Amino acid sequence: MADKPSIPKGTRDFNPLEMIRRNHIFDTIRTIFKTYGYLPIETPAMENLSSLLGKYGEEGDKLLFKILNSGDFKSKLSDDELTSIPAGRLASMISEKGLRYDLTVPFARFVVQHRNEITFPFKRYQIQPVWRADRPQRGRYREFFQCDVDVIGSHSLLNEFELIRIMDQVFSALGMKVVIMMNNRKVLAGIVEVIGEPERMIDVTIAIDKLQKAGLDKVMQELEQKGLGKDSIEKLVPVLQMEGSSPEKMEFLVDYLKNSNIGKEGISEIDQLFNYLGSDPVDAEVELDLTLARGLNYYTGSIFEGKSGEVQIGSVCGGGRYDDLTGIFGLEGVSGVGVSFGADRIYDVLLQLDRFPDKGEMEPRLLFVNFGQREAAHILPILGQLRKRGIASELYPDMAKMKKQMSYANARNIPYVALVGEQEMKDGMVTLKEMETGNQELLTPEQLVERLSR
Amino acid sequence: MADKPSIPKGTRDFNPLEMIRRNHIFDTIRTIFKTYGYLPIETPAMENLSSLLGKYGEEGDKLLFKILNSGDFKSKLSDDELTSIPAGRLASMISEKGLRYDLTVPFARFVVQHRNEITFPFKRYQIQPVWRADRPQRGRYREFFQCDVDVIGSHSLLNEFELIRIMDQVFSALGMKVVIMMNNRKVLAGIVEVIGEPERMIDVTIAIDKLQKAGLDKVMQELEQKGLGKDSIEKLVPVLQMEGSSPEKMEFLVDYLKNSNIGKEGISEIDQLFNYLGSDPVDAEVELDLTLARGLNYYTGSIFEGKSGEVQIGSVCGGGRYDDLTGIFGLEGVSGVGVSFGADRIYDVLLQLDRFPDKGEMEPRLLFVNFGQREAAHILPILGQLRKRGIASELYPDMAKMKKQMSYANARNIPYVALVGEQEMKDGMVTLKEMETGNQELLTPEQLVERLSR
Repeated sequence: MADKPSIPKGTRDFNPLEMIRRNHIFDTIRTIFKTYGYLPIETPAMENLSSLLGKYGEEGDKLLFKILNSGDFKSKLSDDELTSIPAGRLASMISEKGLRYDLTVPFARFVVQHRNEITFPFKRYQIQPVWRADRPQRGRYREFFQCDVDVIGSHSLLNEFELIRIMDQVFSALGMKVVIMMNNRKVLAGIVEVIGEPERMIDVTIAIDKLQKAGLDKVMQELEQKGLGKDSIEKLVPVLQMEGSSPEKMEFLVDYLKNSNIGKEGISEIDQLFNYLGSDPVDAEVELDLTLARGLNYYTGSIFEGKSGEVQIGSVCGGGRYDDLTGIFGLEGVSGVGVSFGADRIYDVLLQLDRFPDKGEMEPRLLFVNFGQREAAHILPILGQLRKRGIASELYPDMAKMKKQMSYANARNIPYVALVGEQEMKDGMVTLKEMETGNQELLTPEQLVERLSR
Repeated sequence: MADKPSIPKGTRDFNPLEMIRRNHIFDTIRTIFKTYGYLPIETPAMENLSSLLGKYGEEGDKLLFKILNSGDFKSKLSDDELTSIPAGRLASMISEKGLRYDLTVPFARFVVQHRNEITFPFKRYQIQPVWRADRPQRGRYREFFQCDVDVIGSHSLLNEFELIRIMDQVFSALGMKVVIMMNNRKVLAGIVEVIGEPERMIDVTIAIDKLQKAGLDKVMQELEQKGLGKDSIEKLVPVLQMEGSSPEKMEFLVDYLKNSNIGKEGISEIDQLFNYLGSDPVDAEVELDLTLARGLNYYTGSIFEGKSGEVQIGSVCGGGRYDDLTGIFGLEGVSGVGVSFGADRIYDVLLQLDRFPDKGEMEPRLLFVNFGQREAAHILPILGQLRKRGIASELYPDMAKMKKQMSYANARNIPYVALVGEQEMKDGMVTLKEMETGNQELLTPEQLVERLSR
C-alpha cells in the first residue's frame, strides 16, 4: 500500500464534529453582525500580488503565498536573470497572484474598486480563510479564519461604541468571559510627544508592554539601549509607574498630556466612549490599557483587544480605527474602524472550557433498518414524509447484519431506530425503538412523523 | 490618483446582494443534505501537489494553480537545471503545494487519511471553492464553488436513489424545473463490447453525443476517422438510431446487450433504480439517456446529470458511482457514489428566471436618525433592546443633514425610520415613520419593540 496521504503542514481537515462546532461560532458571530445592520461580502482567495505586496511590512511580504504563473512562467526571463536574481525578487517576477493575507487589505481594495456602487457609511462583515507562510506551531496555522466587521466612511465614535457592543454580545452569546482592553493611538502619540520622542511610539509601547513581567529597571535599561535620551526616559517614568482604575488613569492623562493637542484629542475620544458605556453598559469589563498599542501601522485612533478572562491564549479579537486605509489604493480621506474575531482561538477557548453546545443537532434522529429490497421500497415513501417535515433520517443502504446496522446507529449517536419487517409491512405499521431506553412502540407512519416532530 | 485596483481575471468579488442570493442556494442545499443524514467536512485550500498531480489527466495537471515554495525556492536547483528544464516540469520542482481542483480528490484523500476515525458507510457533504487555471469566459471562472454530497463504503443502489431524491428536492426547493438524465457506465461498456471495440467507450459516447446536432452520417464518418472498424460501426447503428421513452430504450437494450455480462449488470441496475422511482416518485422527469457518458475516468456504474428545463446552460449538477477512487491513495475496494451541484450555474439560472426570494431579509428594519450626541446616548439602550430581540437596527453614526440620513435609509431599503428629538426625549417616546407610506406613530420604546417584532 502507498504511503498514507497527508496535507501541507499548518493546514487542517475539519471533521463533522469540528465543522458543527466551528459553524456554531460562525453562525453566532454572523447573526449578531446582521442584527447591527452589517452586510456580508466575499473577496477571491487570490489577489493580484501588486495589491498585497508592501502592505504588511517586509516580514509580511515574505509570508505571502505566491501563485506561480500558469504556462511558460519563465519565457520573459533570460537565463542570466533566472540564475542571478535572488529568489525573493524572482518570486514576484514569476508570480502575479498571491493568497490573501488578511481581510482588511482586500476590503480596502473592494471599497475603492466598487466605490460607485456602495452606500456610505458602508457597514460590512466578511468571514473567510486567510493564508500566511508562517512557521506552524501550536495554535498558529498557515490557513486560518478571520471574521471581520468594519464601518467605513464615518468618523463618529458611535461606531467604536457599536463595535465594543458587538464584541460584548458575541462573547456573551458564546458563553465566554472576556475583558476588553481599549486605548487610543492619539494618547500614545501624545505621550511620546510629551517626552520629546515623537518618532518612537512603537519602541515606547513595546517597553511599556514588558513592564509587568520585567519590572521598571529592565524597561528603563531597554529604552536606553534603544537610544532614548535620559530626559525622555525620566519623563516617561510617571506613565510607567501609573496604576489604578480607568478613571484614575484618565485623571493622570488629563494632567500629563495637557500640553499635547493630539494627546488631548485622544483623551476626549476615550472619555466619549466611556460616556456611551455609561448610557448603555455592556456585560464585559472594559479597561483603559495604556500598554495596548497593536502593531499594525495603519491604526490612527481607538484601538481594542479582547482577551479571555479564563484561558491564557492571547487576544481573541482586536481592531481599531484607521483614517486612511483606502489611500493605499488611491482613495484618500475615508476613515474606517473595525474589529477582527479570531475563530481559531475562540474555538480553542471554547473547547478547553467545554462550552460547545450539545452535538445532538449533528446527527439524524432516525435510522430505518434495512431488511432487504422489498422492505426498502416500502420504507422509501415513509422516509420521504419524515424528510419533508425536516426530520433528518436515514435508511441503512445495505442489507447488512442487524448487529452491524445497530452499531452504525450507535456510532453515529442516532437516537431512534425503526424496524419494518414482514408483519409491519402487512399491517402498515412501523416499530420505533428508542436506543437509550430500549423502549419499543408500534406506530402508523403518520404517528411516527408526529412522534419525531415533537 | 493611482490606477483603480482590480482582481485576477476569472475571480469575483461578491457584494451583499450577491452574497444573500448565493447563501440562499448554499443554505437550501445544506439543509437538504442534513435532512438526508449527511455530515459536513472541509479540507484545506492547499493540497500537496503530489495528491493532485495525475488525478485529472494531462490537461488537468496544467490547470492546477501551483504555489511557489516559500523562501529560497531555487536553492536545490543548479543554474543549468533552472535554465534547461522546461517550465512545465520545473513548476513542480519549485512548488510543493497546489490549490484544490475539485472536492472529490480531496475527499478521497480525507477518507484514506482518516479511515480509522470514520464510521462507514460515510455520508459527507462539502461546500467549498475550487480553483482552475482555465481560460475565463462567460459562466466559467477560475474560482468557483462546488457543493458535493457522497456516500462512501456502500454498494447499494439505494444510495443512487437517495441522490436522485436529493437532486429533485434541491431543485424543487429552489423553484427550478430540472430534467435528470441517467445512464450507467456498465451499459456503455456493454455496448462497446457488443460492437467489438471494448477499449473505445469514450470515442463512441462522444460520437453518440453529437448525434442530434450533426446527424447520423457525420457521426459515422467521425467514428471511421477515429479508426473504428466498418463492422463495429454497422453494429452501432441501431443504438444511434434508437429513439423513444426510457422503457422503450430499456426494451431495446435488453435485447441488444443479451450477450454482454457487464451490459446486463448495467441494465439490471437501471431497472432497479426505476423500480425505486416507482415506489417513491420524484417531481423531476428522470430519463435514461444513452448519450450521457461523463468524462471523468473514475466512474464505473450509475451516472447522472441534471439539466435546467428552462434555461440553456449545460448541466447544473452531475455525478456517479466510482468503485475505486480511494485506490489512488492506497485504500482499495471502497465503493462510493456522489453528486456535485454547481452553485455558480444554479445562480445564473435563478437570476435569469428571476426566482430569487425577496432581498428584504438583507437589510435592517429600522434606522434611528442621529440628531446629536445627547440624543444618541439616549437612543443607545433602546437600540440595545431591539437588537436583543433580534430586530436588525441601526443608529446613523454621524450627525449629518436629515436629507443625507434619509437617503441612506432609502438606498439601503430600510423600511422604518425612528426620530427621537428634544420633545420625544422629554416624553420618553419615539416617533416611528414608515418609509413607504410616510405614516408616523408616537410609541413608547416597549411599543416600538412590539411593533417591529410582528
